[in-house]
Amino acid sequence: MASRLKFIVAYDGRPFAGWQSQANGNAVQDHLERAFAIVTKGPVRVHGAGRTDAGVHALGQCAHVVLPARTLQTAQWVAALNTNLPPTIRVLRCSYAGATFHARFSARGKVYRYRIWNDAILPPLEFGRAWHVPLPLDLAALRREATSLVGTHDFSGFAANRGHRVDDTTRTLRAVTVRRRGKCLLLECSGDGFLYKMVRLIAGALVRCGLGKDSAGAIALRLRNPAATAPGARLVAPAEGLFLVRVRY
Amino acid sequence: MASRLKFIVAYDGRPFAGWQSQANGNAVQDHLERAFAIVTKGPVRVHGAGRTDAGVHALGQCAHVVLPARTLQTAQWVAALNTNLPPTIRVLRCSYAGATFHARFSARGKVYRYRIWNDAILPPLEFGRAWHVPLPLDLAALRREATSLVGTHDFSGFAANRGHRVDDTTRTLRAVTVRRRGKCLLLECSGDGFLYKMVRLIAGALVRCGLGKDSAGAIALRLRNPAATAPGARLVAPAEGLFLVRVRY
Repeated sequence: MASRLKFIVAYDGRPFAGWQSQANGNAVQDHLERAFAIVTKGPVRVHGAGRTDAGVHALGQCAHVVLPARTLQTAQWVAALNTNLPPTIRVLRCSYAGATFHARFSARGKVYRYRIWNDAILPPLEFGRAWHVPLPLDLAALRREATSLVGTHDFSGFAANRGHRVDDTTRTLRAVTVRRRGKCLLLECSGDGFLYKMVRLIAGALVRCGLGKDSAGAIALRLRNPAATAPGARLVAPAEGLFLVRVRY
Repeated sequence: MASRLKFIVAYDGRPFAGWQSQANGNAVQDHLERAFAIVTKGPVRVHGAGRTDAGVHALGQCAHVVLPARTLQTAQWVAALNTNLPPTIRVLRCSYAGATFHARFSARGKVYRYRIWNDAILPPLEFGRAWHVPLPLDLAALRREATSLVGTHDFSGFAANRGHRVDDTTRTLRAVTVRRRGKCLLLECSGDGFLYKMVRLIAGALVRCGLGKDSAGAIALRLRNPAATAPGARLVAPAEGLFLVRVRY
């Protein structure tokens, strides 16, 4: 009897070519599919909840596979997969899921975190895991603008053109928070779904407000009228500051 | 008038061949000397407080150089050096020091931190910056054994043979603490000086006690009688868990 294995996977985004399978075989999905193939001695397709770009990290990406049978217990799967994965990809836990579960289509939402290092110098051990913004940021302005994003909106003003049209650009953000942890600002977005580069465009827009480059109400205006934002003012925050925290089901 | 510039430097130990200048030019010292040479347009020798091995990180290594003149202000030095360094080496601050200051010989002590990740799985973003010890550690045993190390002792039982004899193996540890931060144990050693691989040998010995491989009093016995510890029981904790926190003057 075929069975579905759901698993939570964390990775450092830097060594890999993003989530989605690539010709060079160095996507996170490629590494996972090779690890499954070694264990099952046959091809296995890994379905992720969402594609993260190269450089983007995951603390709790979710994925599933369809297996011919329940050959291993879940703890055995965790151990067997991690043995065959690079140390910068770790399967954190596994569970067998119902026949209708799909990592992508069953997802009810995701939580992303964006890390901004707001100090003159980026510490060496933060390199590759935060966006370095050396000029002072107005945290109150960031928070005020962030509130405009909460709720159901047409987010086409915060979507990158991926080369294919998305029919419906309406998304709902449940919460957008900005916390300060020492010299690090943590922007957290929880929503039912995200358009391509949406969190990085939101982070870029909020930082522009925090630097005083855009005035109060800029985010609300861009939500109402995406064309009002000049291309030069559409700042995409770098991939290395972004973390997929968890997927909600 | 010649002047001495003292500076604090942080680095990720992984990309480099340790602190001390190497033929391949990839030691931290080499990168710093090249950065100084670009700014001063002449050769500059960098003197560090201590040599860290390949893979060992620094949060606050201290070093000095002797310059022909005070050509730049200290903030300008920080900016000029960081412009010419890889992002995994950062000069945090500079100050002009007195004519007798020497980063190594004026040092009165150092603080090292050793990070032990004590959980079944090492998260991808902790790879290269902690020692992964998956089996449960007895924190009380670690702390009890650690107290034996405080004070003035002959630490030859906790020194690696570097290929040259050290005449005096007596050192004083002011404090040895073990803290738990979630799944991470932080071992911190503050002392007047450290023998080669001393902190890593201490970390290895404490972990053996925490795993129950050595019994209570093993550390005190090894201090009194280094020969009592079998070579197979001399565990050197890996370089990547070690951080030079600061140098005291």
